[in-house]
Amino acid sequence: MRLTRKLLAEGLGTALLLAVVIGSGVMAERLSGGNVALALLANTLATVGGLYVLIEVFGPVSGAHFNPAVSAVMAWRGELPRAVLLPYVAAQLFGAMLGAWLAHAMFDMSLLQFSTKLRAGTGQWIAEAVATFGLLLVILRAPQTRVAAMVAAYIGAAYWFTASTSFANPAAVFGRMFSDSFAGIAPASAPGFVLAELAGAALAVAVNRLLSTEAATARAA
Amino acid sequence: MRLTRKLLAEGLGTALLLAVVIGSGVMAERLSGGNVALALLANTLATVGGLYVLIEVFGPVSGAHFNPAVSAVMAWRGELPRAVLLPYVAAQLFGAMLGAWLAHAMFDMSLLQFSTKLRAGTGQWIAEAVATFGLLLVILRAPQTRVAAMVAAYIGAAYWFTASTSFANPAAVFGRMFSDSFAGIAPASAPGFVLAELAGAALAVAVNRLLSTEAATARAA
Amino acid sequence: MRLTRKLLAEGLGTALLLAVVIGSGVMAERLSGGNVALALLANTLATVGGLYVLIEVFGPVSGAHFNPAVSAVMAWRGELPRAVLLPYVAAQLFGAMLGAWLAHAMFDMSLLQFSTKLRAGTGQWIAEAVATFGLLLVILRAPQTRVAAMVAAYIGAAYWFTASTSFANPAAVFGRMFSDSFAGIAPASAPGFVLAELAGAALAVAVNRLLSTEAATARAA
Amino acid sequence: MRLTRKLLAEGLGTALLLAVVIGSGVMAERLSGGNVALALLANTLATVGGLYVLIEVFGPVSGAHFNPAVSAVMAWRGELPRAVLLPYVAAQLFGAMLGAWLAHAMFDMSLLQFSTKLRAGTGQWIAEAVATFGLLLVILRAPQTRVAAMVAAYIGAAYWFTASTSFANPAAVFGRMFSDSFAGIAPASAPGFVLAELAGAALAVAVNRLLSTEAATARAA
Repeated sequence: MRLTRKLLAEGLGTALLLAVVIGSGVMAERLSGGNVALALLANTLATVGGLYVLIEVFGPVSGAHFNPAVSAVMAWRGELPRAVLLPYVAAQLFGAMLGAWLAHAMFDMSLLQFSTKLRAGTGQWIAEAVATFGLLLVILRAPQTRVAAMVAAYIGAAYWFTASTSFANPAAVFGRMFSDSFAGIAPASAPGFVLAELAGAALAVAVNRLLSTEAATARAA
Repeated sequence: MRLTRKLLAEGLGTALLLAVVIGSGVMAERLSGGNVALALLANTLATVGGLYVLIEVFGPVSGAHFNPAVSAVMAWRGELPRAVLLPYVAAQLFGAMLGAWLAHAMFDMSLLQFSTKLRAGTGQWIAEAVATFGLLLVILRAPQTRVAAMVAAYIGAAYWFTASTSFANPAAVFGRMFSDSFAGIAPASAPGFVLAELAGAALAVAVNRLLSTEAATARAA
Repeated sequence: MRLTRKLLAEGLGTALLLAVVIGSGVMAERLSGGNVALALLANTLATVGGLYVLIEVFGPVSGAHFNPAVSAVMAWRGELPRAVLLPYVAAQLFGAMLGAWLAHAMFDMSLLQFSTKLRAGTGQWIAEAVATFGLLLVILRAPQTRVAAMVAAYIGAAYWFTASTSFANPAAVFGRMFSDSFAGIAPASAPGFVLAELAGAALAVAVNRLLSTEAATARAA
Repeated sequence: MRLTRKLLAEGLGTALLLAVVIGSGVMAERLSGGNVALALLANTLATVGGLYVLIEVFGPVSGAHFNPAVSAVMAWRGELPRAVLLPYVAAQLFGAMLGAWLAHAMFDMSLLQFSTKLRAGTGQWIAEAVATFGLLLVILRAPQTRVAAMVAAYIGAAYWFTASTSFANPAAVFGRMFSDSFAGIAPASAPGFVLAELAGAALAVAVNRLLSTEAATARAA
């Protein structure tokens, strides 16, 4: 029963996150008249605000992962029961797809579509690994009371400093496959992104360990 | 007497909120030379800053609803005495209208006007329902010390990710009817928006219940 | 001796505030190629960030008024010794002028100049009264720990929702007279702005009293 | 061993900071189609978000200086053991260079390059001194719990109000020499910037002393 609530939180939170990312991308593209920098700026600010709120709202229920890479790391660290990992990931992926559809419904677009935007190449993959490395490092080291603001601020920066605009989340990759719009990614490009993300997450776990020990415990709450 | 103060807070706060929304829309439209994305971006940032401050300032006095849908939910939950609901809503609607007029006075526009901007269609209505659903979920689940920042951040995101630019507030709909400017809505479109908002608010109450029980009480303050 | 420190804080803080407002206006105007909305957006964000930091930094020393209207209200309420009011205002005005010159020095402009930008008319004066009313209401009602963020967010909104771009500060009017740039105001327009600001401040004191009594003391810190 | 961790934090944090600054500059320049104000706006927001997060993440380990001027002041005040100053600076410089290369790798640019953007002249040097003066004043006077937000907000303002776009950091100057892109600085211009920054830092130490004594200790945490 508590698990049902957690899965509802992960699914609904991921759906709303993808609706924010995709919906604001559609709105930004429609209004910006081809000014891509302006469109990405609006997309960024909407994502930052939405992500902050979603983590604050759903964090107390499920941890507000919304991200299989995060859930996998938490399971590996013993902070998420391992039996719960697969249901979490399933809820995230299902929610991500529903979120894309919700965005399409709001913008009067056909619900079912697939992105044709290819995103690939060494630079893009390095960027996704860096983006996810940074995200996980933030999550692993943030004080509980600030993690929502820190993750949101980080993603806002990463939309710009990584060449891939920082998906940093296999569920986001999955959901964005289903939208042939500003924020989309072609299904053919998805596996490369996900692999890079998992590599970045693993690197974050290793670096976090190097940075930790007594120093971390002396941190001010 | 305490009620008078609360109604003053609701009326003044809603007036200032509408002045912010409509006034910044006018300024943005005038300065942006037809660049709608840039205009909405400025409108968004002004609304986020203004909403954050207004909730912090008036929250301790009246709860800073500024929104009949919020007041109705609070009355339904017993957090607002039911006898106070109608006066609250009246103060909000009256304040919203005054706020539109205040914006017009500042920008040397004729005070009394009506919007001609039609906002209707399935996508718009779904968007308003989603926008209000999200707003109420945030309000119902936010810790007291963060609710102002969370509501402001949420509305900033919702200006972009919902196709309707997120009115999410029957009093805002009412006030914005009185302004034939960037933020306006034609009176003929108002009922559809208000109905969608009330549906979204009701859905939020239901989903909030599904997410709640012991998990919510274990939340860190 | 403590007074010297306070006056240094008021003077230096106001100088830096004006350097931020005027300097970012110059930068924004130079880079934006005539796109006024974009210029004001950059000017706004710089002001918000700078104001937040300056209030946090100088607040513990002098209260971080940087504004004769604020100091006057504080003296009237007995929170600033009345004998200190004139020295405070002198430090603010002197600092404001130095801040304009500092901005000019950084941008290789002639130090001494006067704005030729006329800002007048009923709408502008109403706007300045509203802007200052809101600023004082925020200052009088903000919890100590949040006043910097709230004032900064408020001014960010007021740059857009008031038709005057919210000077809301006689020292800012004074300093901006000395800069023939984006943020300037012609000396001939200064008295009207200052009078409107003082009227708005007085109104805020009155409204704050209406909103106060036991409700205010019950506020969560 | 604890020192190794600290140096890792300084090196990695500075690398990520430079990757944020340079990477977001490249992205902004590519997308903005020659609109420099828009490019700097995006560069600013990415830097603000990234800096906030990096200080929060690495602060508990190493103090999150990422800046030889900051480390020098801390050593001078006895808050950093003097024997550690040189290793700190070395880690920062090395990290800054690696960060530039990381940005280049993500954006498919040749790794090794040198900026050709000359930045010099009285205005630029005054601006760098002012920028670093302000940064150090903020760091020396910020409450521990707010220093990350304050530094980030300050730098966001300083990108616009100082004519130099506020490097304010000899390690940033060093790293940005290695990138012939939006955020770069020609090696020939580096010494002038660094000298101006050190002068600004020294001035901040002096002014901080003038502002301090009992007042500072009475500050609310």
